[in-house]
Amino acid sequence: MQVIVAKRAGFCFGVKRAVDIAFRESKKRRKVCTLGPIIHNPQVVQALREAGVEPVEDPVGYEAVLIRTHGVPRDRMAVLQSSGVEIIDATCPFVKKAQRYAKLLFEEGYQVLILGDPEHPEVKGILSYAGSDVVVVTNIEELPPLKERVGIVVQTTQPVTSLKQLVQKVIERTKELKVFNTICNSTALRLKETEEIAREADLMIVVGGKNSANTKQLASLCSSMGKRVYHIEEVSELKREYFNGVKKVGVTAGASTPGWIIQEVVEWLQAVG
Amino acid sequence: MQVIVAKRAGFCFGVKRAVDIAFRESKKRRKVCTLGPIIHNPQVVQALREAGVEPVEDPVGYEAVLIRTHGVPRDRMAVLQSSGVEIIDATCPFVKKAQRYAKLLFEEGYQVLILGDPEHPEVKGILSYAGSDVVVVTNIEELPPLKERVGIVVQTTQPVTSLKQLVQKVIERTKELKVFNTICNSTALRLKETEEIAREADLMIVVGGKNSANTKQLASLCSSMGKRVYHIEEVSELKREYFNGVKKVGVTAGASTPGWIIQEVVEWLQAVG
Repeated sequence: MQVIVAKRAGFCFGVKRAVDIAFRESKKRRKVCTLGPIIHNPQVVQALREAGVEPVEDPVGYEAVLIRTHGVPRDRMAVLQSSGVEIIDATCPFVKKAQRYAKLLFEEGYQVLILGDPEHPEVKGILSYAGSDVVVVTNIEELPPLKERVGIVVQTTQPVTSLKQLVQKVIERTKELKVFNTICNSTALRLKETEEIAREADLMIVVGGKNSANTKQLASLCSSMGKRVYHIEEVSELKREYFNGVKKVGVTAGASTPGWIIQEVVEWLQAVG
Repeated sequence: MQVIVAKRAGFCFGVKRAVDIAFRESKKRRKVCTLGPIIHNPQVVQALREAGVEPVEDPVGYEAVLIRTHGVPRDRMAVLQSSGVEIIDATCPFVKKAQRYAKLLFEEGYQVLILGDPEHPEVKGILSYAGSDVVVVTNIEELPPLKERVGIVVQTTQPVTSLKQLVQKVIERTKELKVFNTICNSTALRLKETEEIAREADLMIVVGGKNSANTKQLASLCSSMGKRVYHIEEVSELKREYFNGVKKVGVTAGASTPGWIIQEVVEWLQAVG
């Protein structure tokens, strides 16, 4: 059986950086916590717990608190700073940029639109930097009344098609538009590569947290192509009978899936022969 | 016979302003010229000539030179200024804005795109303010290689659909985009009103220079709706037999058609009864 593994499977740049920082800090033997689970992957959260890094809602009693990739709202950061706890900022640098641009647009006097999911922690963080004249846009069909000068920033995981639709709607109704395209292309590239592999594979294995939005997106893409798919968190979920008569199996994984879990899956599949 | 006249027929704001300035200057009895024909309407050019305002290519020997609505390139303006001739600047204020915004985008370090017709005098003027890193975009399918920071200004008479297509193409390929929507909506509104009138009229009369692009656009809109259309420059071109059996006639006119010509046409039609 041929095993095709997506090159872009697993950790994106920001997640890898944050997890590396967390493990490095754990070795300094300080009492470290993360503000909420570091990523949507229970195995990584568990591994960090074993290394002494706890996910908490309130870092009271800890020496240091790690800010996860999504970032935190400005006022939350201020409270942490004044509490005296050491802050290890593992906010994804691309998210940080979106925060900075939201602040800049506000300072330059633009009405700020944030394209994204208002319930997502990343968007809540960006929003907190955008001043008072800001709206989160989820449904492009329902724009707020627009001013003459509009600025746009984007949640890093939004599809570029949504941004294209938004800018063409806005430009027709305003005099000046400034857009920071803060979309990180790692999600789009991972989907594209997964689609290419699914096209030639008989069966797809999607590895990642059952609660990870981007992993679920990979699995539903494969199903929508009419492929048989198994979405698993760990190698132990695989069964030999899945592979009867399978000539080519494709493997992909979400941005929060660690390399070691992908590796175990690949080795198991190769051993099936 | 019912005569329906478009409210927006004839001079737009910028043209009216320029022609008024020209007639006012002619009364000061100075030797005045315009740099090229003031607008694409032979009757207005002739009326100004009779008032002593000549269209010329070079204002040598004149006391004062009038800059027409489209504006002039920066270097041409500099030559005029150093020549000592008095300059009467009748550039349309909306075109002037587009020139200023092109300059601003250049100063702010953007690669500048001008959406428009590179052969049009207005675009040549705007281009001259946009510095060295500038491209005129006519065909949206053929974009130049884009930099990380792109700025857009638009020829004032472009359709907004072209701008919408351009921004969505560009935003996908760049990190930062600043757009000044310098489209003047008078062209769009005139087309819309003409369409509404043509829908209920049996016959359309389009009044304006045979070489006026926006007047020709009005005539071809009416034809495309399956209506009988006469594109005339003057009332003398109308014939009684055109109106046999006509119950409703619609009248519209381009941005360079003076009110007095439209008025003559309307009075003639009303007299037909």
